[in-house]
Amino acid sequence: MAFSFEVIHKDTKTSARVGKLITSNGTIDTPVFMPVGTQGTIKTMSSEELQEIGIQIVLVNAYHLSLRPGSEVVEKAGGLHKFMHWQRPLLTDSGGYQVFSLAKLRQISEDGVEFQSHFDGSRHFFSPEDVIKSQEHFGADIIMPLDECTPYPCSYEYARSSMKLTCLWAEKSKAVHENGEQALFGIVQGNFYHDLRKVCCETLVKLNFSGYALGGLSVGEDRAMRQEIVEKTIPFLPEDKPRYLMGVGEPEDIFLSVEAGVDMFDCVLPTRNARNGCIFTHNGRISIKSGRYKDEFVPLDDKCDCYVCRNYTRAYLHHLLRCNEILGLRLNTWHNLHFYNSLMEEIRENILQDTFAEYKERFLSKYSSKN
Amino acid sequence: MAFSFEVIHKDTKTSARVGKLITSNGTIDTPVFMPVGTQGTIKTMSSEELQEIGIQIVLVNAYHLSLRPGSEVVEKAGGLHKFMHWQRPLLTDSGGYQVFSLAKLRQISEDGVEFQSHFDGSRHFFSPEDVIKSQEHFGADIIMPLDECTPYPCSYEYARSSMKLTCLWAEKSKAVHENGEQALFGIVQGNFYHDLRKVCCETLVKLNFSGYALGGLSVGEDRAMRQEIVEKTIPFLPEDKPRYLMGVGEPEDIFLSVEAGVDMFDCVLPTRNARNGCIFTHNGRISIKSGRYKDEFVPLDDKCDCYVCRNYTRAYLHHLLRCNEILGLRLNTWHNLHFYNSLMEEIRENILQDTFAEYKERFLSKYSSKN
Repeated sequence: MAFSFEVIHKDTKTSARVGKLITSNGTIDTPVFMPVGTQGTIKTMSSEELQEIGIQIVLVNAYHLSLRPGSEVVEKAGGLHKFMHWQRPLLTDSGGYQVFSLAKLRQISEDGVEFQSHFDGSRHFFSPEDVIKSQEHFGADIIMPLDECTPYPCSYEYARSSMKLTCLWAEKSKAVHENGEQALFGIVQGNFYHDLRKVCCETLVKLNFSGYALGGLSVGEDRAMRQEIVEKTIPFLPEDKPRYLMGVGEPEDIFLSVEAGVDMFDCVLPTRNARNGCIFTHNGRISIKSGRYKDEFVPLDDKCDCYVCRNYTRAYLHHLLRCNEILGLRLNTWHNLHFYNSLMEEIRENILQDTFAEYKERFLSKYSSKN
Repeated sequence: MAFSFEVIHKDTKTSARVGKLITSNGTIDTPVFMPVGTQGTIKTMSSEELQEIGIQIVLVNAYHLSLRPGSEVVEKAGGLHKFMHWQRPLLTDSGGYQVFSLAKLRQISEDGVEFQSHFDGSRHFFSPEDVIKSQEHFGADIIMPLDECTPYPCSYEYARSSMKLTCLWAEKSKAVHENGEQALFGIVQGNFYHDLRKVCCETLVKLNFSGYALGGLSVGEDRAMRQEIVEKTIPFLPEDKPRYLMGVGEPEDIFLSVEAGVDMFDCVLPTRNARNGCIFTHNGRISIKSGRYKDEFVPLDDKCDCYVCRNYTRAYLHHLLRCNEILGLRLNTWHNLHFYNSLMEEIRENILQDTFAEYKERFLSKYSSKN
């Protein structure tokens, strides 16, 4: 089945909207949060557990998988869904962000980027065309073109030429993309320059992608600066296509961006924080390693009905984290993913009821009270 | 319900036997393998997963829990079952083995042992009476008295006086043990001296414990030496009480010891090996990190019907282990525990059918062929 997107309901008071993404591996209700499975696994979690939580779509890093185990192994397995034992939708990113954040000794040209693997220093070359072809082998439902992610701060001149390169690569990607079952998104760059973001949107929209991502954000700027870019960029994107804010973020960021009309998010925050003992609760974040939890025989979050909160206490999770026990990392990850997933469910529900703004205020007043 | 043990069937050709251990938290079919949950968790596994595998009883190290989180926290939680979220039977060991293998600067007397914690160097004193009291707080179904585990090799004189100390501590332990729902076992020491083992058995049997453990084995001796001790010691233990071989072992050791009349085993082997990528299969052990598995799209063990073998391939597990992904450690642990648990099930089944010796030969001829 071909990919499609439909806006189901628009909030009456904000730009928030509820939509449906249809893919050959299932339908995704938006706004959606996609947990990050960098190396073909959401760290610590099994597929069945992700399904129990209600995770609709998982993001995997094409950069990592291209290097290890390599796209030929995944292709031989029958694609990434089979390799990972995950039947629901998948999104692979292009590796652009990783080439610019992890890899070493980059050499960029219109043809692509040469770099050294951060695993073993081996040399690799990614062209925009290669990146599409390898993602076709992976077989994810949504794929991304190679882009250049600029740092913050960044000169106007560099941001401008980089944005033009990203647009050129987007065009090359579109030209070689053949698999009609995979949706190819465009990635908007332009650093923190509104006019560059606008030009990028206009160029990409002419190429007619299946969706549009805001890239190059969450790179060190503050929340207000990011929010301004999000709010001023979205009006240049078509109403009838999904909008994906890459690498964001905190619950506060999600509320602000949903309010501006974003449909999709991904971020390592719930999973990475979990492994450091940072737990999301309706009363804000807590650090479960703190001595104050050592004899609290209550759930992580008393408003939560996840498997972890139904069965385990803060005291036990405190003990597991202090002992570096893997079960602690698992249970924390489970809870945090459930927290994010429930948050998105409630956001959708409240948009449908036209109560999004009130819900946002109610949620954040409690969530931020202890932060 | 009080603890009891019953021999259900004795093999006609060997000393192997099938029995039932009844505890207030459930009945255990023997011979049984008890996985080791050192710090109050079987590393990587949830309680539900252990139940799905069919694990009947879990061993926890009282030494570790006494130091962290401390017995008062576990007592406040309502006992170890509640703290860990594990409803089936539990056994806590005394910490004797850990004091002599992990802790530093030991000072031993008839009153007990002073040592430095291997976590933080803090000083502690365990008396035999303390160890029973703290295990009463933990509330496991089977508990063990403080003992001294001698090294190999060891002089006759040291082994003899150490064995006498272990017997004295056993007597002190028995004298203070009050909780009738907990079974207290005696631990047979005596190093590799048959006459010392015999004297120890006779002393302990007079004290009338609920079961008897063979301690001080698997400390560096070879298999034949260990087996001789097991075979020559068991005749001095009562027929109607369970016999527990501590810290053993490989599938080959389990077959030999069951044949000699052992009912219970514990060992870190299936779980620790799993985390190193060593997988037990019906065709012997394999190291899943080896490059030969990188594109083998078949289960870990084609004779296995566990969750992992039903859903994941060698290629994916190879990838996860090479990437140090926690999901790989989990899935390997799951499979290895299932392997050990199924082995014990088949051993019991074959003893009941009087086909144990044939089963042992059939199993080992395949299992050892590739070793």
